[in-house]
Parts: sequence; structure tokens; C-alpha cells
Amino acid sequence: MSDLPKFVRINEEGPREGFQFEQRLIPTERKIALIDSLSKTGLKQIQVASFVPPKNVPGWADADEVVKGFNRCPGISYTGIWLNEKGLRRALASGKVDVKGSLSLTASEPFLQLNQNRTFKQNLEAQHAMVTLFKDHNVPIERASIMAAFGCNFAGDVPISLVLELIQQILDIGAQHEFAVNVLSLGDTMAWATPASIRRVVGAVRTKYPDLEIALHLHDTRGMGIANVYAGLEMGVSIFDASVAGLGGCPFAGHRGAAGNVCTEDLVFMCEEMGIDTGINLERLIESALLAEEIVGHPLPGHVMHGGSLRRIRDKILTAM
Amino acid sequence: MSDLPKFVRINEEGPREGFQFEQRLIPTERKIALIDSLSKTGLKQIQVASFVPPKNVPGWADADEVVKGFNRCPGISYTGIWLNEKGLRRALASGKVDVKGSLSLTASEPFLQLNQNRTFKQNLEAQHAMVTLFKDHNVPIERASIMAAFGCNFAGDVPISLVLELIQQILDIGAQHEFAVNVLSLGDTMAWATPASIRRVVGAVRTKYPDLEIALHLHDTRGMGIANVYAGLEMGVSIFDASVAGLGGCPFAGHRGAAGNVCTEDLVFMCEEMGIDTGINLERLIESALLAEEIVGHPLPGHVMHGGSLRRIRDKILTAM
Repeated sequence: MSDLPKFVRINEEGPREGFQFEQRLIPTERKIALIDSLSKTGLKQIQVASFVPPKNVPGWADADEVVKGFNRCPGISYTGIWLNEKGLRRALASGKVDVKGSLSLTASEPFLQLNQNRTFKQNLEAQHAMVTLFKDHNVPIERASIMAAFGCNFAGDVPISLVLELIQQILDIGAQHEFAVNVLSLGDTMAWATPASIRRVVGAVRTKYPDLEIALHLHDTRGMGIANVYAGLEMGVSIFDASVAGLGGCPFAGHRGAAGNVCTEDLVFMCEEMGIDTGINLERLIESALLAEEIVGHPLPGHVMHGGSLRRIRDKILTAM
Repeated sequence: MSDLPKFVRINEEGPREGFQFEQRLIPTERKIALIDSLSKTGLKQIQVASFVPPKNVPGWADADEVVKGFNRCPGISYTGIWLNEKGLRRALASGKVDVKGSLSLTASEPFLQLNQNRTFKQNLEAQHAMVTLFKDHNVPIERASIMAAFGCNFAGDVPISLVLELIQQILDIGAQHEFAVNVLSLGDTMAWATPASIRRVVGAVRTKYPDLEIALHLHDTRGMGIANVYAGLEMGVSIFDASVAGLGGCPFAGHRGAAGNVCTEDLVFMCEEMGIDTGINLERLIESALLAEEIVGHPLPGHVMHGGSLRRIRDKILTAM
């Protein structure tokens, strides 16, 4: 157990990823209400909007209005995503989003073609172009991601050697353009990971690149999300993307069971009960999760928001004594 | 990873536990259909009925008819539960249930009182009486359980020393009545366990009683089910109770989010992908899970039944090549 980290950092992706996925449009003021609620939980990073063309993601046509409306709290980094210069300019123009650059390679060419209409080579070139764009706008590059790092619905199993090769390509981009990649995110985009493959892939990356800080972006489509987090914790991973109430999912993943990211409050619950600090108030986070469920108007996959925290039960028992 | 077992045995509890929990009555022939479907999956033990008084569990008023109706397949052990001699006699009279004795202690006196209206002392005496009853009917005693071994909604955290003390009480009953307890089941009745407490409790039991084979009975109320299974696997546990599609739950657990046992097909999926044999055909099990969902008429918590197996995707990719 000695490998478990003492502190875990959670990047909340619920608002951005969740509202993108919903079939009916969520009113702007409800999106703002969820962001404001999350700001009171102790989360230090919240992804608040997607600055992508409305024709691609109608659910985020109101990104500018959402960003204008939410209440920025000090100490919290509010982030967004974009796919091109126009989106980046929107994010910069908002004045309220912490614009951070990130690069992304994908470990499956068939998925890359379906998702972004690019070959491996075109995607690599696009990353070089992204770096230039970030430099032109003085945007720091904070993170690089490998999507589909654990397997792909269109390419099948992904060899670890390919993941390592893509990481090297990213480091080479960094060397060429003179910036350091500090955080490397491994994405289980189509929920192929199990605890065993988390250990294998994280272990291989860590062995080859001991200085890279590894983050995990996990989906729960096959119910492995929290177990995969645990396997990551055992490997010393201390940065996770997560989604309040389990909001969201990947609409391009090609199967009807597409589920969202691992659920933030379930993750926080596990950490808290295992003595790992997250800096997050679980009770407040549960309130945000219940609000998210109310906003989307259908059940969401989170468990602890209904099962309840143990701390609350312990307090009740103590009070009754 | 060397501690992971090569083979995992799964006791299917879905029919018994699931139909007990449903608010509307499930027609007898639909219960039989699920049992017959499960018999084709490779499962070696299926709990098919609850021989308890209908006034306690109306959902199992038709236990005798269900047992009469299902199609017994060779090599499968069909089990049931009962609370008293009358129930045991019904199970024996059915002629189709493999009547196996088990003892059960509970690591929380408040829960024991709510659930069975007994003190620790009364429950211990009841186990002695049970042994006599089993002996009178030539029923072998196969297993002992500690319920609420990881914590309790009414008593809070459960000290490991209490769990060990209860195990000793069971072993003492065995010594006194001259039978061996081979399998000890640790029940996370109210979903308090995390991977860390699974490791702590299983580790402590194994250290003190190295000859006992440990089984885990886990609930998924707080979303930790599969992660707790994984922690159990890491500790070498190779027997798990599970419930197809995640059917079921504990109606006495005192909170609205009461969720069922860990989901069988999600567990089988994880094992299969990690190279652990279960003897179960995942595709057929997914069919049973979808049937279970159809029978209860509302969504059930299983993931893989909707997310799909990876084997199916791999086959599809191979065929397309």
C-alpha cells in the first residue's frame, strides 16, 4: 500500500463533457449554476466550456455566454477546450478561462480518422501547428495526451510500444519547439482498460520516462472506472480527470453503452476513505452531483451521491451516542 | 501482479437476491427463464430461491414453484436460502436444490437487531441450533459468513479485532460440533469497503487463519464493487458472490441508494481481460443480463451488458481484415 499517493489532484470535466453529451439542450443559466456549485467544493480545476463550432457540438453553442456568466473564484483554474484557432481565440477573448495549451496524439489511426479525419502523420503535423499557434498567443503548454492508449473499438488492442512511440513524438515536439512536457495524460477513450492494463501501460511509461508526471483520463463504459483509478493509485498516479455524477461520454465511440468519465464523487469517496487527501469537500460535491442530475433530468451513473458518504453516517452515530 | 489467482469461482446470487428486492412481483415463469438462461453460461453455482416466509419476502412466495419449474443441468449446484427449519424443510422437499448448510455471524449488533432481532449472544446461540438442525437433516456445512465485516450504517466502522473474534467463534462452533469450516465469506453488507479496507481485513484474516479459504460478498452501493473485487484478487481471493446485471440489494440497509451485489458480467469481464479464468461464457452471460433487465422492466446497474465485451469487438475487427 506504500505506493498510494498522499494527495490526488482531480480535474473536473463534468460541465464541459457532460453537457456536450446530453441530447436536449441545457439552458445556459443551469450550466452556470453547476459551475458555481462546483466552485464551492474545493475542486482546483474545472473545465467549464467547449469552444468548438456549434455545428459539431450544438450543446456548447452558448459557450461564450456560460463563461461570461459564471462566478470566478480565486484559486480555481477554469479551463476550456477548442479544436482550432477560432476556438482558441474565443477562449482567450473570454478573459475568464485559464487558457492552457495541450497536445494530443491518438494510439489508433482508425479512431483518429473517424474522430478527427486525420492520419497519424496529419495529426502529428497538426500538433506542430498547434504549438506554433500556442506560441503566437503566449499560451503555455501544460499537458500532452495519448488518446485510446488502452485499446480502441476500431483498432482493437493497442501495443504498449505504440504508446511509447507516441510519447516520444510528443517529447520530440517539445524538444524541437523548446518547451517541456510535464504532465502526460493517458486516455482510456473507449473504456478498454482493466486494472491489469493500467499497471502494464503506466508501468512501461514510468520505466521509460521516469520524469513524466502521469495523469489518467478514464471512462466507465464497462464498469472498470474506479477499479482502474485504484490500479493507477497503486502505481503512484496522482492526477485524474473525472466528471461530477458521472456526467458525459464520448459520442464518437461507436457503441450505445458509451458512459462518461469516472465519477468525481465516487473517486473522492474512495480517496477519502483510503486516507488520500483531495482537498475536496465530499458533502458539497454530492450536492453538486444531485444538482447535475436535476439539470439533465435523468439518472446519472454516480453511486455515492445516492449511497451517501460514510462520514455523514459516522457523524450521525456519534451524535446519537 | 503475481498474487492474482488463475481461476475465480463465482456464486451467482442474482435470481434469489434480485427478485426479492423488486417492488412489483415477477411472474414465476420469468424467474424460471432467468435461471434456465444462467444455466447455459458456465456458472457452476446459482442461488435460485429464498425459502423464507412470504410475509417477510413476498417476492419469493413462489419459491416452491420456481424450483419445481427450472431445468436442472448437470454439474451446476443450485442453491437456496432459508431462515428456519420450516424453510430448510421446504428446500429439502424440493428435491432440486443442493441444500448446503452455512453459518452466519454479524459484526454489528445494532444491524443484527434490526435485521434479525437478535443480540450477539442470541445470534451465536442460534448458530449452535442451526448446526444441530443441519446435523439432524444430514446437511453438510460448507461455508460461514461474517456480515457487515467492513462497516455498518448503524454501528459505524467495524474493528478488525471484532471480525477476527467472530471468525474464532465460528471455528469454535465447528470444533465443538466436529465439522470443518472451509470457506469463510466476508460480507460488505452495507457497502463500507474500499480497496484499502479489503486489503486490511483480508490480510488480517489470512495472517491469523492461513488455512481458511476466503470468499467476498460485495455490494456496489457506493460504486466500489469492482475495485474491491480487484483488491480481493490482489490478495489472492478467488471466490466471489455476484449478481447478474447487478440485480438486487439489501432492503434493510437503511438508505435509499441500496444497490445490489457486484455485477457478475462486469466481474467476469475484468477477470477475462486480466487472464483469469472463470469458466463462464461472457457473451451468454450478457444475454442473461439483458434478459434480467427485460424481466424487471427497469434499468439495472451492470455496465458490460450495454458497453459490450472486447472479445466481440476484436472478433469483428479480425473478420473485417
